[in-house]
Amino acid sequence: MKIIFLGSGGSVPTKDRGLPAVLIEYLNELFLFDCGEGTLRQIMICSSKRNGKNKGKNEKINFMNINKIFITHFHADHIAGLIGIMNTMNFLERRSNMEIYGGKGISNLIKNLPVPKDAMQFIKIYEISEGQVVEGKGYKIIPFKTQHISESFGFVFEEKEKRKFLKEKAIALGIPEGKLYSKLQNGESINLDGKIIGPEDVLSESIKGRKIVYTGDTMPCENTIKFADDCDILIHDSTYSNIDIDKISDHGHTTALQAAEIAKKANAKSLFLIHISQRYANSKILEDEARKVFENSCVVEDFMSVQISAPPENKISVN
Amino acid sequence: MKIIFLGSGGSVPTKDRGLPAVLIEYLNELFLFDCGEGTLRQIMICSSKRNGKNKGKNEKINFMNINKIFITHFHADHIAGLIGIMNTMNFLERRSNMEIYGGKGISNLIKNLPVPKDAMQFIKIYEISEGQVVEGKGYKIIPFKTQHISESFGFVFEEKEKRKFLKEKAIALGIPEGKLYSKLQNGESINLDGKIIGPEDVLSESIKGRKIVYTGDTMPCENTIKFADDCDILIHDSTYSNIDIDKISDHGHTTALQAAEIAKKANAKSLFLIHISQRYANSKILEDEARKVFENSCVVEDFMSVQISAPPENKISVN
Repeated sequence: MKIIFLGSGGSVPTKDRGLPAVLIEYLNELFLFDCGEGTLRQIMICSSKRNGKNKGKNEKINFMNINKIFITHFHADHIAGLIGIMNTMNFLERRSNMEIYGGKGISNLIKNLPVPKDAMQFIKIYEISEGQVVEGKGYKIIPFKTQHISESFGFVFEEKEKRKFLKEKAIALGIPEGKLYSKLQNGESINLDGKIIGPEDVLSESIKGRKIVYTGDTMPCENTIKFADDCDILIHDSTYSNIDIDKISDHGHTTALQAAEIAKKANAKSLFLIHISQRYANSKILEDEARKVFENSCVVEDFMSVQISAPPENKISVN
Repeated sequence: MKIIFLGSGGSVPTKDRGLPAVLIEYLNELFLFDCGEGTLRQIMICSSKRNGKNKGKNEKINFMNINKIFITHFHADHIAGLIGIMNTMNFLERRSNMEIYGGKGISNLIKNLPVPKDAMQFIKIYEISEGQVVEGKGYKIIPFKTQHISESFGFVFEEKEKRKFLKEKAIALGIPEGKLYSKLQNGESINLDGKIIGPEDVLSESIKGRKIVYTGDTMPCENTIKFADDCDILIHDSTYSNIDIDKISDHGHTTALQAAEIAKKANAKSLFLIHISQRYANSKILEDEARKVFENSCVVEDFMSVQISAPPENKISVN
């Protein structure tokens, strides 16, 4: 499970920060959260080799493999990149569905963008509400309400619980390796010489999956604490430093310090600060501020990638 | 008079090429031609210092000084950047008018973009037709029809003719330096001790101004030759190499070789090839191809700037 940050800035892009776009790679599927202007080009740069004029990271992202896009809210810095992505997928004659999820009105919004009608054959649009789970192979994605100046959602990306196959138990029970193993792994019982063996005889207890939470734009809110409960990675709005706290209330954002307090209360394992205002050319001030409250804090940079190893280790490594 | 190329790619952005956007700086005014996705960020990078992660060019472009944007046609790779620019101008509380010019339908197009209604207070939209001149201090901009798969325009940016003040003639006529000089320069006659002296007595013959022509997306067409007549700089669609000529007819574009033929026929002084397809990672092939027909050809790179010195020298320097 890997997160690739494609854009870490807020509202206005800077030389070094693109607009919000967070990619999650899981079992060869790509999930995009928010899609600020320039997201497609950020993918092109990130996928390219590290050398050359615009240094890439050689991440080998094929944007045609993005199957689901989740939009936190409709401000332009979170959606304008959809135009390029949809047009280019259409230009390259995509046939398989690409799903876009967002709050009430997403359908009208997408249909009014300057995109050829043909693209609407592969684009499927879904209106979401809190707790309405989007489920797929091995994962579920849960939208939750956040608190911004317009309706806004955060998203939980959660790996489903898994039970490990305990080969030593199967051997002890005399089960021959092969098809019977697969049946048990898939939750079926087997008949071994008249003896019924169930999955519970050879599978471990349930192991909690990995959990990533992305807030989008929000003020500090109780709902984030609730939904980010025990997560591995909390990616939180951190538009401002707490020294500029007077600017927050108007705009519906969070300071680095406040984000750290949320991470602590949610018992998150790590905090990644995103949606950095253009005013912080040196973002170390934000990291330092957060670390005073929550040690495992990190300011997101464009093209930063974060891996979480399989449970129960859930080891986080940043690249 | 300076041109700054903000985006030189076509249709799909690449690691090294943004989408079409050509900035002309003239007498402290900024004119933008096309506005592909990512244009605002390209301005941010271009304006920043040469050092750092994304090397800028220190061009000191203040995008808030863009007063006029000209759109060649409505394909997304030429317009999607308007969203970010309009939103950010609104976010920064712009008050002075920003004019957008484009073909029939531009008004609806702009009004359907996800931009706050407030922005429409400073945005003024104008539908153009061929030959309908947009005039301002020292310049005129002339739209002309080109040949693409949808309605499309090219634009002539032309400096008005000027007459130089010939100080030696004024001295010979005994005119005292000061207010009377200004009157004559402004085209008024003066009365010097009963003798009427007209501007024609102290001004040179008209000197032709500098002329830049930008085609936008187009197939080779006679109209470009006509409007680009004797221009200093022809910025021409050069999406493909002539070795891929079979791909052209479908898409309404031009090869480097064809663009060179147009430049030659139009008696242009120089040719800049733009809208380079993503397939040409090494664009030297296009430059070589064009130079066989028209020596003074150059493939545009992002952030390249081109200056034309004052007439009658009209010296072109590329940086």
